[in-house]
Amino acid sequence: MTATPGTPTPRADGRADDELRPVRLTRGWLDHAAGSVLVEYGATRVLCAASASEGVPRWRKGSGLGWVTAEYAMLPAATNERSGRESVKGRVGGRTHEISRLVGRALRAVVDYSALGENTIQLDCDVLQADGGTRTAAITGAYVALADAVAHLRSTGALKGEPLTGSVAAVSVGIVDGLPRLDLPYVEDVRAETDMNVVMTGDGRFVEVQGTAEGAPFDRAELDALLALAEKGCADLTRLQREALDAPAAGFRA
Amino acid sequence: MTATPGTPTPRADGRADDELRPVRLTRGWLDHAAGSVLVEYGATRVLCAASASEGVPRWRKGSGLGWVTAEYAMLPAATNERSGRESVKGRVGGRTHEISRLVGRALRAVVDYSALGENTIQLDCDVLQADGGTRTAAITGAYVALADAVAHLRSTGALKGEPLTGSVAAVSVGIVDGLPRLDLPYVEDVRAETDMNVVMTGDGRFVEVQGTAEGAPFDRAELDALLALAEKGCADLTRLQREALDAPAAGFRA
Amino acid sequence: MTATPGTPTPRADGRADDELRPVRLTRGWLDHAAGSVLVEYGATRVLCAASASEGVPRWRKGSGLGWVTAEYAMLPAATNERSGRESVKGRVGGRTHEISRLVGRALRAVVDYSALGENTIQLDCDVLQADGGTRTAAITGAYVALADAVAHLRSTGALKGEPLTGSVAAVSVGIVDGLPRLDLPYVEDVRAETDMNVVMTGDGRFVEVQGTAEGAPFDRAELDALLALAEKGCADLTRLQREALDAPAAGFRA
Amino acid sequence: MTATPGTPTPRADGRADDELRPVRLTRGWLDHAAGSVLVEYGATRVLCAASASEGVPRWRKGSGLGWVTAEYAMLPAATNERSGRESVKGRVGGRTHEISRLVGRALRAVVDYSALGENTIQLDCDVLQADGGTRTAAITGAYVALADAVAHLRSTGALKGEPLTGSVAAVSVGIVDGLPRLDLPYVEDVRAETDMNVVMTGDGRFVEVQGTAEGAPFDRAELDALLALAEKGCADLTRLQREALDAPAAGFRA
Amino acid sequence: MTATPGTPTPRADGRADDELRPVRLTRGWLDHAAGSVLVEYGATRVLCAASASEGVPRWRKGSGLGWVTAEYAMLPAATNERSGRESVKGRVGGRTHEISRLVGRALRAVVDYSALGENTIQLDCDVLQADGGTRTAAITGAYVALADAVAHLRSTGALKGEPLTGSVAAVSVGIVDGLPRLDLPYVEDVRAETDMNVVMTGDGRFVEVQGTAEGAPFDRAELDALLALAEKGCADLTRLQREALDAPAAGFRA
Amino acid sequence: MTATPGTPTPRADGRADDELRPVRLTRGWLDHAAGSVLVEYGATRVLCAASASEGVPRWRKGSGLGWVTAEYAMLPAATNERSGRESVKGRVGGRTHEISRLVGRALRAVVDYSALGENTIQLDCDVLQADGGTRTAAITGAYVALADAVAHLRSTGALKGEPLTGSVAAVSVGIVDGLPRLDLPYVEDVRAETDMNVVMTGDGRFVEVQGTAEGAPFDRAELDALLALAEKGCADLTRLQREALDAPAAGFRA
Repeated sequence: MTATPGTPTPRADGRADDELRPVRLTRGWLDHAAGSVLVEYGATRVLCAASASEGVPRWRKGSGLGWVTAEYAMLPAATNERSGRESVKGRVGGRTHEISRLVGRALRAVVDYSALGENTIQLDCDVLQADGGTRTAAITGAYVALADAVAHLRSTGALKGEPLTGSVAAVSVGIVDGLPRLDLPYVEDVRAETDMNVVMTGDGRFVEVQGTAEGAPFDRAELDALLALAEKGCADLTRLQREALDAPAAGFRA
Repeated sequence: MTATPGTPTPRADGRADDELRPVRLTRGWLDHAAGSVLVEYGATRVLCAASASEGVPRWRKGSGLGWVTAEYAMLPAATNERSGRESVKGRVGGRTHEISRLVGRALRAVVDYSALGENTIQLDCDVLQADGGTRTAAITGAYVALADAVAHLRSTGALKGEPLTGSVAAVSVGIVDGLPRLDLPYVEDVRAETDMNVVMTGDGRFVEVQGTAEGAPFDRAELDALLALAEKGCADLTRLQREALDAPAAGFRA
Repeated sequence: MTATPGTPTPRADGRADDELRPVRLTRGWLDHAAGSVLVEYGATRVLCAASASEGVPRWRKGSGLGWVTAEYAMLPAATNERSGRESVKGRVGGRTHEISRLVGRALRAVVDYSALGENTIQLDCDVLQADGGTRTAAITGAYVALADAVAHLRSTGALKGEPLTGSVAAVSVGIVDGLPRLDLPYVEDVRAETDMNVVMTGDGRFVEVQGTAEGAPFDRAELDALLALAEKGCADLTRLQREALDAPAAGFRA
Repeated sequence: MTATPGTPTPRADGRADDELRPVRLTRGWLDHAAGSVLVEYGATRVLCAASASEGVPRWRKGSGLGWVTAEYAMLPAATNERSGRESVKGRVGGRTHEISRLVGRALRAVVDYSALGENTIQLDCDVLQADGGTRTAAITGAYVALADAVAHLRSTGALKGEPLTGSVAAVSVGIVDGLPRLDLPYVEDVRAETDMNVVMTGDGRFVEVQGTAEGAPFDRAELDALLALAEKGCADLTRLQREALDAPAAGFRA
Repeated sequence: MTATPGTPTPRADGRADDELRPVRLTRGWLDHAAGSVLVEYGATRVLCAASASEGVPRWRKGSGLGWVTAEYAMLPAATNERSGRESVKGRVGGRTHEISRLVGRALRAVVDYSALGENTIQLDCDVLQADGGTRTAAITGAYVALADAVAHLRSTGALKGEPLTGSVAAVSVGIVDGLPRLDLPYVEDVRAETDMNVVMTGDGRFVEVQGTAEGAPFDRAELDALLALAEKGCADLTRLQREALDAPAAGFRA
Repeated sequence: MTATPGTPTPRADGRADDELRPVRLTRGWLDHAAGSVLVEYGATRVLCAASASEGVPRWRKGSGLGWVTAEYAMLPAATNERSGRESVKGRVGGRTHEISRLVGRALRAVVDYSALGENTIQLDCDVLQADGGTRTAAITGAYVALADAVAHLRSTGALKGEPLTGSVAAVSVGIVDGLPRLDLPYVEDVRAETDMNVVMTGDGRFVEVQGTAEGAPFDRAELDALLALAEKGCADLTRLQREALDAPAAGFRA
């Protein structure tokens, strides 16, 4: 770690290095989706919607097992500089593909397919405004939308058991100005030497660890420091998810 | 007109036949776009963002003229039944294409390209929730976002003159249960015999008239009744646009 | 209307303002299609072919109802300046999509799906030469090809009842040099302030009204004048359709 | 060859085995293209249009050399059974690609690029009705359209020298019912054991020989017989091309 | 033929004009494919893999007949100058399409579909290194892979009869520096006036003859000389195929 | 970790849990590429080719900096069950996209763009046979191909300095039957509860850590055990890379 001791650079938004941005999870943001959550990590806003349908993809029919899948996308004006629309380009970009797959895997880690039965839940995570950490916010919010969709299915009698074996949340960590920091906004993200996204279950185990050296490679000590930060952040997020699910859905005009 | 006299069917939401749904125009919904508006026609919610950039498309370079264009799209979970994502399908559907072109033409009707200079303003209209009239809400909201973007360009000195020659607003009208009605929500839209979208300028002239017989063809008297309703609705919307632009931008937490 | 009284600009081809170009409907232009018509509005030439097949698209199976659909396209050399081939670009353009949908809707307005039974009729409207009004010529010609296909199906015993509830024809009208004019060729179309395409049934009702202000927005009086012209033009076209269908098919060497 | 001696099966249309179908080359079929020809080989009808433009593709700029290229396509209703539109499928099929390339190569065999200068001539060959031999008709017709386009360029002063070093024509030959036959219509084509397309110059040399055993492989004697037939057919076509070019253009109402 | 008598240009690699490059057929190059062959014509290397699967494409189901198809492709770095990847471009190029179709047709010429039963064999011919003649090497190698796949199917009991009615091999011939030559490497291929690919059965009959004048058209005498060379080359290749199939599979470390 | 103490399941191939499969790096496998390596991790075979070209992508022009990028793909017959060709599907799949991006990032971690100058090196990693760990083999092989390409550029004078700041290698680790294991072949990979790909520099620092819980989430102790294994494996691979680069290139017939 290269920061000179004694001269710590404070974060632009005044947060402690192990502190999340203000996180809000607004349930019931849409009128019709089985579950819908507007998740905010600071200025990052992702609309997560869970649509439930009977049946499963063809390759899974007759298995008695359900399916959960996810698509992530970004509105063109979500970023500082407008980005082209993927539908117009006619192809989904590599980054989008990659994140959609990540979100799906993260959620599936806490799903019991037998208990779900032959039902499919499709998560759509659309970034309305991007300020770093969109994929981690998407996972954290999508879990809450998924939980609402499951509750909805149970309320309609489509489901009896408990298909959720736990919860998942995600956060980014990185080494910025030589210091390990939690939940990077865009201005920190672009300057990070190392950037890691960590997905964890509510009981503190890892689902995904994706660390990338953007600048210099990182050593084992740095990796350990980042993992510790992520564990702290995911524990905080798990608590916020639980609080959101315990409260009544606030809806769009929250 | 086939409704039996004396037994008028009231509208499900209790509105008068010539009454708009509650309309809200929330300016400044995004932090960075030159202009951004969340427009609501009842439960229909469209996020309209205007991104300004220097320069124009190649075919227009060196002309001294600006350009305004628009893209319309719908989030998968915006509709009652989830619809597939066009980026994933790899092609923009006919309906999306058609509406994008309509929104662009509507806005360009009030733009003076010379006054805009060689600047481009791109409007993105993304439907967050659909309950009928999304294309008309998109036009009404996009005009306000465009006005904000123009003001922004003027404040940065990128623009001196007035590129807006007027305002535009749009509304749907239709014959439902034999009665001409203004601003159809989804439940009325699917039952309408005739459906018309009308785009008008703030001074009461027509920019687009698109009427379609969904069921039986319509006669001239019905057409006249629909045009009158649309004139009334667009006048109301023009007033709401003016009020929104006169007030300070409310921002996302409005 | 801005034309100075007393100085009417005559039309380049000498027509009266409410006069159609020479219209020809040549039936039986192809040897095998169930119905085929070469339709000409002046120099505009559109080949309309109706292909009948048993069965309907999957979403309609077992309903007992038939289906009618249409595709419109333009040969690359149909226009003054060659335009790129959409198959080579790998995507159908917005304009093509929009017109294909319009032609399909127009025809479906006069089809009784129960009487058609579970048969599909596919209309292909390929513009061989374009000189304005191609979409309206396509509709007028496609109706005649559709009528021939229906007669063919009846002659083979595939059909018993009458699936056509009436006829449709279409024409463009516009305000050119301040004057409302009927059936615009290319040279007038590019100069039109307002351009409207109107589809009407043979009994004088409206199926589609699509008016667009290309230059200045138009007022209600102008709109009324255009609608009157269109009513006159469609009535003339209806008569020509009837005459064509009453005469024997002329075939390719007509 | 397997046909029993003494029992020759006559051709369905009564032609001699070495006889072409009635061939017509109608020049000036379109009003605006630099060259346009409707070519007919019996019931096969291909519209060939040559569009000339200044300049050449980027990879050829500054070379002083011209370019000639071709695209072949088939209207959906050209065949007995309607075939899907390639623009709608979003990709050009292998057969279409292959024939477009063949037509381009055939024409380029008689073009002197220096004499053409930095001009591009684009040939579009659109099959309006298909009854076998469409690719060979396309080549024969496209040559005539190309010659007209060259004459047009010369008349406008865009060209001084003679970029055509000769003529090209093409014909199909095949072994049907054990007999070598010239210019196969669809009914013969589907039954042919061997099918060969031959492109030749006006002075009797070969540009392309594409022979395919559809059923049993063919021996050298059969190959020689087919080549002899093709030489005869191409000589006839060359004469017809010359006659067409010597006569005045007949135009669409021919 | 334009070479001056008495001054024959020797070939760069010292071969006689009617001599093949060193040809190697290495069977069993992959561990799992039903048949796999690395075929080399000099520096040209093509990996041919045959994958067998039960069942046939939908349009052939219930016919009792099998199916054989092929795909040809080139690795980006196979050529001297790297070529773009077709998957990234999002479309298969015309040349690739054309060769895939050629390889498929060539193999199908020696397949008895009834004896194959409702099984499909898919050949993949991937060019690892290209030095001219890749499509002909692909055919020669693919036949050997196909024979291995058939033997494999027989060994598993999936097949009883003999679906191969003969063998196929292919070679390129061309006129280079005025001389007819066999099996052109890249340096000769680019200079060839005429280029011909010939596919023949093991008993000396023709399956495909594809000759193209790259420079000047060719006369009948030249065509005859090329056909004679191809007959010689294919006979040599047939012998090499037989020897390879008689020996034990050498595998990857050969 | 769930394996019962005392009953360790031995690996199918008899390796120790921290032992690599036999690794071979065959340099000079292609005749023309600036660098080319066939890398084998057991039965996994990946052909890595490095193509060097002058210039950089447009967005980097004039910066004085070079560019390194990579594409990963799999031949259809590389897997046990043939997989469809992405060029034919018309789109690159999510997995392919993701791995291509990973390989590119891994290599760029050891590139000094200034020293490279405005040159581009494109790595193509094509999987000829897949038996687990293809992405890690691709990275390890691609580094060696990159080193050869750099040496080649230096030998031609295109490059003076040293653009490589170190080496990179990659390996997979996973928890199989409750035990952490190094370098998983396909049979282990499909049964792994947790799967991690680790990219490290030659001096023992991390470039990428991508761990995924395929079955149950993993705890910190398991994560630490996997990281230790990966450190061991990458150190072994680094040594093998050095040995390969020190020896003369073996070429294709190795």
